[in-house]
Amino acid sequence: MLIALDAMGGDRAPHEAVAGAVQAARRLDCAIALVGPRPLLEAELARYEPLPSGLQIIEASQNVEMDESSARAVRKKRDASINVAMRLLKEGEVSAVVSAGNTGAVVTSALLNLGRLPGIHRPAIGALLPSSEHGALILDAGANAECKPAYLVQFAHMGSAYMRRMFGMARPRVGLLNIGEEENKGNELAREVYQKLRRTHLNFIGNVEGKDIARGAVDVVVTDGFTGNIAVKVSEASVMFVVDLIRDVLTTRLQYKLAAIALRQAFYDVRQRLDYSEYGGVPLLGVKGVVIVAHGRSDANAFKNALRSAEEAVTAGILEELAETPKK
Amino acid sequence: MLIALDAMGGDRAPHEAVAGAVQAARRLDCAIALVGPRPLLEAELARYEPLPSGLQIIEASQNVEMDESSARAVRKKRDASINVAMRLLKEGEVSAVVSAGNTGAVVTSALLNLGRLPGIHRPAIGALLPSSEHGALILDAGANAECKPAYLVQFAHMGSAYMRRMFGMARPRVGLLNIGEEENKGNELAREVYQKLRRTHLNFIGNVEGKDIARGAVDVVVTDGFTGNIAVKVSEASVMFVVDLIRDVLTTRLQYKLAAIALRQAFYDVRQRLDYSEYGGVPLLGVKGVVIVAHGRSDANAFKNALRSAEEAVTAGILEELAETPKK
Repeated sequence: MLIALDAMGGDRAPHEAVAGAVQAARRLDCAIALVGPRPLLEAELARYEPLPSGLQIIEASQNVEMDESSARAVRKKRDASINVAMRLLKEGEVSAVVSAGNTGAVVTSALLNLGRLPGIHRPAIGALLPSSEHGALILDAGANAECKPAYLVQFAHMGSAYMRRMFGMARPRVGLLNIGEEENKGNELAREVYQKLRRTHLNFIGNVEGKDIARGAVDVVVTDGFTGNIAVKVSEASVMFVVDLIRDVLTTRLQYKLAAIALRQAFYDVRQRLDYSEYGGVPLLGVKGVVIVAHGRSDANAFKNALRSAEEAVTAGILEELAETPKK
Repeated sequence: MLIALDAMGGDRAPHEAVAGAVQAARRLDCAIALVGPRPLLEAELARYEPLPSGLQIIEASQNVEMDESSARAVRKKRDASINVAMRLLKEGEVSAVVSAGNTGAVVTSALLNLGRLPGIHRPAIGALLPSSEHGALILDAGANAECKPAYLVQFAHMGSAYMRRMFGMARPRVGLLNIGEEENKGNELAREVYQKLRRTHLNFIGNVEGKDIARGAVDVVVTDGFTGNIAVKVSEASVMFVVDLIRDVLTTRLQYKLAAIALRQAFYDVRQRLDYSEYGGVPLLGVKGVVIVAHGRSDANAFKNALRSAEEAVTAGILEELAETPKK
């Protein structure tokens, strides 16, 4: 299996992207096509000795900056690394694309180059919120700021398909992110979607709130891309706030510092559980191809895990499962 | 100063409500009117010896249950404790109302009995998200699931007024909760509000995301009541998730347990910083009276702190400041 990695996407690309690809080539059962300017990528690869087999470079002369207006940049720069990677996927040269670039750019490029799966209104980004061992998949996490009820119903189907194939769940529990349990709660969008989800064959458990997600009561959390993006970012920031707060308090006294040394491994375990880079990337669902979006701040480990997610999604046959999404 | 406490509101009322009132009467410079069924409240008060002065009971024979459809229950039950408390405020018998009851019930009762401040479109609930020492005030945190742009502009004014008076800030930094920094980001509501906020005299710093709130870059976070409620609950759940995770990891090995004993005070300090009950209640802004909403799970400490918030809001002259809110 060959996976295309947008080697220029992300705050720490290409250095960390290439390092992650080298790790993945050593440990995973896949080959990786690094997409970006050849001289730059060759210089990065020269750092590794011996170089694992299964790495190749595909030339892409342009780049979408993290702060560029993504849609415009992607349309203008035909040879941006993200566009070249998507075209490889479109042409069947690779099995999946991984990028830590600007999310808007990845979504736009996927829509331009791959297009949507038949009958899908809008693609959605799935993100994992911390909960039980695998996390809860929330979608849309930011591809569509404005949503119609029918989009969210499809998000529920696509999220269920993803959890079935990726985690072997028979009947993933689907919840609607809302501001209360009762079915009449929320804004107009949420109330309409509630009624529509009830009439699907999905394992719809009703409205869910933050506490339900954290305690592992739901597997797929459905919401619009505005609310979902804010929920994911607030959750991430709150987690880091607590971790930083604990670190600050533990450095206030010598006796704390000594005790904290004994707890080093424990804190390491906690960090592992909370570290976004351990989750790997998150899927862009609903386009004609396996696309994994990695965190903008991805380091080598995060890139390696995103490549692993891509490999797993291809192996699991996620696209075939998504093709079963009801068209209405 | 006399403050009315809805002694029947909250998951742990009236026991914890009365306990909190007793603590407040001992420590704060205010008297408290406990509103609820007299026999029940007398029985609760009989537990305390000596009983501090400044406590009185106001009879209310009905009660709004936490799971009742709040709007209907408040309208139907004229003598619900929350309605009796609001009428005392309306008639000038008390200076403020504190309730840990169903938020919808508190908002409905305030609107029915007090009404809105002149020119205010919708009242908003302010909630504190963890950040620098005082937290960032996010509003609306759940009073209005559906909002128009003009509401959010008033929320910005009301939030600024609150932070000016309560925390002595000269020019609170106002941010719009959004899914990116650029002014064209977000849904239609967010984009319209952005343009409107730019034209106010407020200290508008643009769009903000989770990370900006956590690092203390903003004092007032403006959003609709659907998104705001979800953000507050996701943040709260994420914080508790981390705290629980750390506790679980620290109990896996004896050596961790021993080290954790040395850190007991440190963990206590962290808990204090994160504990919702330390913040006291949050304000309902835009109605004709000082109303403080306490957390539904309030314990005695949380009730005491909510009463303290009410006392501070009255002393700070928050209503006078809110009356200056532009009417458009």
